[in-house]
Amino acid sequence: MRQLLSQRIAGVSASFIREILKVAGKPGIISFAGGLPNQAFFPLEAIRAATDAVLTSEGRTTLQYSTTEGDAALREWIAERYRRRFGLDIPVEAILITNGSQQALDLLGKVLLDPGDEVVLEEPGYLGAIQAFSLYQPQFLSVALQENGIVLEQLQKALTKHRPKLFYAVPNFQNPSGISYSRSRRQETAELMQGKSTLLIEDDPYGELRFSGKAAPSFKQLLPEQTLLLGSFSKTVLPSFRLGWIVAPPWLMEKLVIAKQSADLHSSGFTQRVIHRYLQDNDFDRHLQRLIDHYGSQCRSMLSAISRYFPREIRYTRPEGGMFLWASLPQNVSATRLFEKAIKERVAFVPGHPFYIGKEDSHCLRLNFTNAEETAISEGIEVLGGVMEEELKDTR
Amino acid sequence: MRQLLSQRIAGVSASFIREILKVAGKPGIISFAGGLPNQAFFPLEAIRAATDAVLTSEGRTTLQYSTTEGDAALREWIAERYRRRFGLDIPVEAILITNGSQQALDLLGKVLLDPGDEVVLEEPGYLGAIQAFSLYQPQFLSVALQENGIVLEQLQKALTKHRPKLFYAVPNFQNPSGISYSRSRRQETAELMQGKSTLLIEDDPYGELRFSGKAAPSFKQLLPEQTLLLGSFSKTVLPSFRLGWIVAPPWLMEKLVIAKQSADLHSSGFTQRVIHRYLQDNDFDRHLQRLIDHYGSQCRSMLSAISRYFPREIRYTRPEGGMFLWASLPQNVSATRLFEKAIKERVAFVPGHPFYIGKEDSHCLRLNFTNAEETAISEGIEVLGGVMEEELKDTR
Repeated sequence: MRQLLSQRIAGVSASFIREILKVAGKPGIISFAGGLPNQAFFPLEAIRAATDAVLTSEGRTTLQYSTTEGDAALREWIAERYRRRFGLDIPVEAILITNGSQQALDLLGKVLLDPGDEVVLEEPGYLGAIQAFSLYQPQFLSVALQENGIVLEQLQKALTKHRPKLFYAVPNFQNPSGISYSRSRRQETAELMQGKSTLLIEDDPYGELRFSGKAAPSFKQLLPEQTLLLGSFSKTVLPSFRLGWIVAPPWLMEKLVIAKQSADLHSSGFTQRVIHRYLQDNDFDRHLQRLIDHYGSQCRSMLSAISRYFPREIRYTRPEGGMFLWASLPQNVSATRLFEKAIKERVAFVPGHPFYIGKEDSHCLRLNFTNAEETAISEGIEVLGGVMEEELKDTR
Repeated sequence: MRQLLSQRIAGVSASFIREILKVAGKPGIISFAGGLPNQAFFPLEAIRAATDAVLTSEGRTTLQYSTTEGDAALREWIAERYRRRFGLDIPVEAILITNGSQQALDLLGKVLLDPGDEVVLEEPGYLGAIQAFSLYQPQFLSVALQENGIVLEQLQKALTKHRPKLFYAVPNFQNPSGISYSRSRRQETAELMQGKSTLLIEDDPYGELRFSGKAAPSFKQLLPEQTLLLGSFSKTVLPSFRLGWIVAPPWLMEKLVIAKQSADLHSSGFTQRVIHRYLQDNDFDRHLQRLIDHYGSQCRSMLSAISRYFPREIRYTRPEGGMFLWASLPQNVSATRLFEKAIKERVAFVPGHPFYIGKEDSHCLRLNFTNAEETAISEGIEVLGGVMEEELKDTR
């Protein structure tokens, strides 16, 4: 019956990363592979209290069907936080609650992409976005990321030689690279985009997780008419509630609501009420600060171990927040081969090629620093450095 | 920027039912419009206990990211229930957890439908399925429902004159009609389908809610190779957790998992663990029996009021379970006009045309009997009967 499969899915096979993560999750492996937040910081007792408070004060109503747009009080909280922390004035009606940012990406693909439409991606780019958009069969245009953001000349070329509908960017502590756009690169990027018939999707799951450097303005501030802003509670509170959101203008919101209703009617009203109660009853900034302090310390541990144990030829990013850094081997060294050797030494990471369009291998690797203890980080990086040294011997 | 919208969504406008439900939800209205389960039967205290037990025994792990396929123990419970209650032997690997059945419909559309592919629908048909499939731009073929299931000649014609990929059916207590397929109609339907390159989607959210008559075999038993079976906890336990499932063969499951991962990574691991704990720690059959007894009583109240207050010309179904019945006015009477008059008398229902493809009005109405108390049912039906009488006067 395989002939019944739609064209959009027939040729797609299971994600390479899924297979990597299965191996990486085995006992005794030091894993820098996953993209998991550190569960030691999930506010377990506060969530228990919030759950109980919601069931007591709201009773069975909170277990019934609810609205497609999402819980009004939770959307108000999100709008208020944008106002207070970032000076962003976003009406509650512009916010749609989704099942994590991943669903936001799927819904945006659904309401915006016809087969063959062009989408600009950062290179390397976020795998979840590549996967979500791919099922709507666009043409991807890649624009390289460098230290302070995308290469402007490449974006300009993409915008003038092509007619992309979307430019998808993760301006803060990008997954997979850990790179952030500088203030000036944001301004220059916004200027290039201004007035074009191209929307900018600003995916910002990590923006609240800055442990060094200074925050730069959001694209939503620099390019308000063309920017769709995505947020998530998965990295700041906990992922299992599957709660994120899209900020979109009215003409798009109308269609997103139709698509969301068709996709699953609405996100869980119960988890929305619980997380709202949690946010209301607790000091969220204090919670974030503890998380930020720890992630910053884990990141510094990894950077210090890298400078000590990795061969000199290895280049790597120095993130100011988020969960990942990105290391580049010399061009002729295979990260897949390195992975196979490293896993025998019980250390895992994600080889870089799934973050590119159409690559079978690369010389890059993504390293997650939030989900291993600092002693394990140091130990794992030492082992990985040793394996790299072996691989590089032949190339010198 | 409207020109950026995809073809699949550009022409779709907000659901007519959403507007109806806004009016119907106002205070003082007796509403037979919604499709809500009766929240008096949500097991609030048992859910509170299950939530607490999960947080205590599983701690932060239950708040982390989890697997795309769904919670292993919950899938095992579902397989075991199929085995024990229905004699269906379904491997755990054949079950994918979704955000309610609605997401199952969206994922099936995504992995199976290319634009122009043909889909057979019951007429009247379930609106949520029409909405989900529509975004994949199929051609719909309608096959009329009558007392004991679809009209076989029409299905045969659709299967031989066309090449539909899917036939979507709700064989038990259909939404909107309340009709169930008889045992023999199921067998004849399965025989017609047997060996064709057409999959049967058997959507069964209400199957456990039978209050009279005798259960007939599932299409999954009669046509195992071609049937995709959908289930849900929304009507039997509670809707706000957004938990349903698909039973699918391996060649399709592989693609459904890819589509689910792209759509939202996974359904909430937390609500999956809580509902599993609830099912494990409580007598689910006893819970169901209370629900069934009440819904049966509400249905009998509505039928008895109808026989008393509706004009003789009105035909209506007599459901053996579920949540809805379907009434037909004489052909030349408009249900939309009836709605407008009834709402002035503070009684709401859903006019039938959204359950047909391409109709602007119809002479039918859907009446929900699970979400109003029995005195309100009697009172509302009396008022509605009076409004009908007025409408029919001119046509006699």
